[in-house]
Amino acid sequence: MENQNNIPLLVIRRMTKYHKYLMKLVNNDVVSISSKKFGEIIGFTASQIRRDLNYFGDFGTQRLGYNVKDLLIEINGILGLLKKHNMIIIGANNIGKAIANYTRYEQLNFKLVGIFDVNPELIGLTFQNIKVLDIDNLVSFLKEIPTDIGIICISKNYAQTVTDMMVENGVKCICNITPVDLNVPKEIILENINLTNSLLTLKCLMNARTY
Amino acid sequence: MENQNNIPLLVIRRMTKYHKYLMKLVNNDVVSISSKKFGEIIGFTASQIRRDLNYFGDFGTQRLGYNVKDLLIEINGILGLLKKHNMIIIGANNIGKAIANYTRYEQLNFKLVGIFDVNPELIGLTFQNIKVLDIDNLVSFLKEIPTDIGIICISKNYAQTVTDMMVENGVKCICNITPVDLNVPKEIILENINLTNSLLTLKCLMNARTY
Repeated sequence: MENQNNIPLLVIRRMTKYHKYLMKLVNNDVVSISSKKFGEIIGFTASQIRRDLNYFGDFGTQRLGYNVKDLLIEINGILGLLKKHNMIIIGANNIGKAIANYTRYEQLNFKLVGIFDVNPELIGLTFQNIKVLDIDNLVSFLKEIPTDIGIICISKNYAQTVTDMMVENGVKCICNITPVDLNVPKEIILENINLTNSLLTLKCLMNARTY
Repeated sequence: MENQNNIPLLVIRRMTKYHKYLMKLVNNDVVSISSKKFGEIIGFTASQIRRDLNYFGDFGTQRLGYNVKDLLIEINGILGLLKKHNMIIIGANNIGKAIANYTRYEQLNFKLVGIFDVNPELIGLTFQNIKVLDIDNLVSFLKEIPTDIGIICISKNYAQTVTDMMVENGVKCICNITPVDLNVPKEIILENINLTNSLLTLKCLMNARTY
């Protein structure tokens, strides 16, 4: 994945955390906050926060700190949270079902528009008022309903094939929840969520302590 | 989380990828491989690979490259893959069920020993021959069966409480699949798998391109 603005991926990941806590502050009617105080809440240093935010613009004032609402609006803009993005789920298994039934993404302007599978036992089921379609319908679906994001949690044997189908039909971002390392063109944004890697990382970290 | 050996977390994450591809090479009877060739397969540079492996020891030879089996054995040691680790799942919802029914972690010497929930409709169900127990049994369970790893995918209202119960009863690693930011003592290893953050990251990256 190429980030053309050279904003480090780790900064962008931290931005999602800033957003989460700014929402909490706004909900608690906090008007302004210093980078020091904000850092204490999130668990980052004040300088870290100032460095991160400087990638996107000049926020806050030396004396008054950050205006919470303004900062949230700015970060909403940075994260594109106000833009609606169509999303499909490939795989109607337990994970696909859990994701389909997970409501918070709607508040973040992700719109689930389709769910697909190859398994006849799953095709035809309905989650969140969306009927699981046969993967054979994917290409015609994408031609009809432009979709930015595809979440893949289908059996690994199909993962690359389905990814290619999505990429060839306008999907810009792939969220890969299969154990497969997917090949995508460099302009495609790929996010991997891999339980096995996470468990292996835990193992390695446990072991590194006594290494 | 503190990594006492000062091995960067990103290096450890890459080690899990080295392991995955070395397994494939061994299964394809590849005897030795140069860091250049290995890098081409994984998608890292040769120097990246040499730098990473140097954190753990002096592998390979200038002329012959890496002996695939030896390197795999070394990385198995580094990742502690040959050590068995007991693991419990907190939350028998769709995600918990998907994880319980996910078999690959057994090959990696993770042993699922318990599943817990608060929901009367889920307590008593059986996944992988393990009966879902009431969370009220968690502490006595952990006193009886020492467990290193806890995977949390329970309703977010319970996440911190259950984490505290696990930490106080010997669980060393928490894999957090809830949207909650968990507080754990610094000696506890915490790995967060957060779909919302991943989707927000995708959104931000899509947007950063046109920012």
